[in-house]
Amino acid sequence: MSGNSLASWNDGTSKQSILDFVARVTTTGVPDFVPPADRIAVFDNDGTLWCEQPVIQLAHVLQRWEEMAQQDPALRNQQPWKAAVEKDWTWFRTAITKHYGGDESDMPALSKGVLAAFEGLTTEEFAARVAAFFRTCAHPSLKRLYRDCGFAPMVELLRFLEAHGFTNYIVSGGGRDFIRQIAGDIYGIPQERIVGTSTSLAFREQGDGGDLLHQARLDVFDDGAAKPARIWGRIGKRPILAAGNSNGDIPMLQFTNKPPRQALRLLVLHDDAAREFAYTSGAEKALALAKQYGWTVVSMKNEWKTVFA
Amino acid sequence: MSGNSLASWNDGTSKQSILDFVARVTTTGVPDFVPPADRIAVFDNDGTLWCEQPVIQLAHVLQRWEEMAQQDPALRNQQPWKAAVEKDWTWFRTAITKHYGGDESDMPALSKGVLAAFEGLTTEEFAARVAAFFRTCAHPSLKRLYRDCGFAPMVELLRFLEAHGFTNYIVSGGGRDFIRQIAGDIYGIPQERIVGTSTSLAFREQGDGGDLLHQARLDVFDDGAAKPARIWGRIGKRPILAAGNSNGDIPMLQFTNKPPRQALRLLVLHDDAAREFAYTSGAEKALALAKQYGWTVVSMKNEWKTVFA
Repeated sequence: MSGNSLASWNDGTSKQSILDFVARVTTTGVPDFVPPADRIAVFDNDGTLWCEQPVIQLAHVLQRWEEMAQQDPALRNQQPWKAAVEKDWTWFRTAITKHYGGDESDMPALSKGVLAAFEGLTTEEFAARVAAFFRTCAHPSLKRLYRDCGFAPMVELLRFLEAHGFTNYIVSGGGRDFIRQIAGDIYGIPQERIVGTSTSLAFREQGDGGDLLHQARLDVFDDGAAKPARIWGRIGKRPILAAGNSNGDIPMLQFTNKPPRQALRLLVLHDDAAREFAYTSGAEKALALAKQYGWTVVSMKNEWKTVFA
Repeated sequence: MSGNSLASWNDGTSKQSILDFVARVTTTGVPDFVPPADRIAVFDNDGTLWCEQPVIQLAHVLQRWEEMAQQDPALRNQQPWKAAVEKDWTWFRTAITKHYGGDESDMPALSKGVLAAFEGLTTEEFAARVAAFFRTCAHPSLKRLYRDCGFAPMVELLRFLEAHGFTNYIVSGGGRDFIRQIAGDIYGIPQERIVGTSTSLAFREQGDGGDLLHQARLDVFDDGAAKPARIWGRIGKRPILAAGNSNGDIPMLQFTNKPPRQALRLLVLHDDAAREFAYTSGAEKALALAKQYGWTVVSMKNEWKTVFA
């Protein structure tokens, strides 16, 4: 990749918006010029930089639940371990559908399972597990390794922005310590620029050293209104470019706009059933706001020459 | 400053420890070599990079309490606003002394005052206030602006480490958004590499934009065992060098050690009543552990040619 082109983007509204915006903020001497230190770009991950059908992190948790149930047979009669062992995807789909319909009856079991999955592991042990997962596990229908599920045009955009003095961050509702193990390889974004959901970490002192252990407790769920707060907490600046694909990205996209400074907001639209998936579930409000406020909607079908590398 | 010398350090144990450590981890082909991306150095701020008698951030809060009491006369009869208006430093000293003795009777008023001080301000409004504070406010006994209270040998160390491929972070019990406004000027450390105590920030949506508002609620008190967790949360790596000066830095100093990898731990000792201050209060345990584990104790009196630039 040249780092200086958007070769896998078709000529069209989105590509032109990106080119125009980057030209405006990087031209010295014009009012819209933004110095390189303030060229901050933030990207949601699931559905924005890689596919989210199914959520890749869920496959990692499922693998762990099966492992836990092998070690402790009593778990095989409890949800969500039971569904994981029996590969009963209907149970998971029903739990999520009920949740969206306001019925939270399966949520306590699901949350408990997610939080218990890696309890007691050190940060290094968890990292090694995630790295192993990405070496071997493949997407069920796309028939490619999860590590190859990044969207090529978005990776190209990351390089294009870097070539123009931007600094890219991931700001994801997914797990911070999960994404960190793969973001360098897929996206070229280093570990310190991954913001995401996290479980609490407890320090266990041991003589002149010590480790951080994953706790069965949520630290921050990095979605919705938490995203702007986490961006400020991490970076101390407002971004000038934000990309998302769902309702959980709305506050991040809004926060990026601070007139008279220029801002570019991108919303990835999953409308490509042939090459990826077609759905707008969970993005309805974001799409309505994009129309209302003129955010740039990126149609995968129309604007991307290729989806995967 | 050349960026490549420790000219304001006297020849002695500390300078030699730093030079030896940096040589070991930056020499390619030896077992102790650490690649540049993993050369992470973390620094406490109060008492490690600048003076902490009195705590500089407290001066900023006091200024705000006086302002609040001017606008709302009812506050003048309530602590801590009353003590701030009357410049009754004894009240503050007594509150802290009582706290260390286990008597928390003044703490609710003090905490409430600290958290209420900037409630409702946007992150940008808060930043502008802090910047104004640093332009004009001076240390009461050192007779220099607070912005000139950084320790010259430590600033020199930051440049020396950078020149050898290290990335420096501040990890402070002080306020993240307070330090951020001055760390670039004093230490050359950018806003995204400041980790510190924070109040909760709430996103207020406003049409196609929105702001983050300071809440009267603590988010994270970044001290003690919180420091390693925050370092991991922010950086995703263990540091190989850590510098502190008090008991609150102990877990950070321990976490930095992960044999067989090399690690350098520095503990600044305030033993220079003539040029700065002499005290070990709040550092007793850290000094005992430094002796037990061989951490490098930096005597300001003996090892620094100059204290302030």
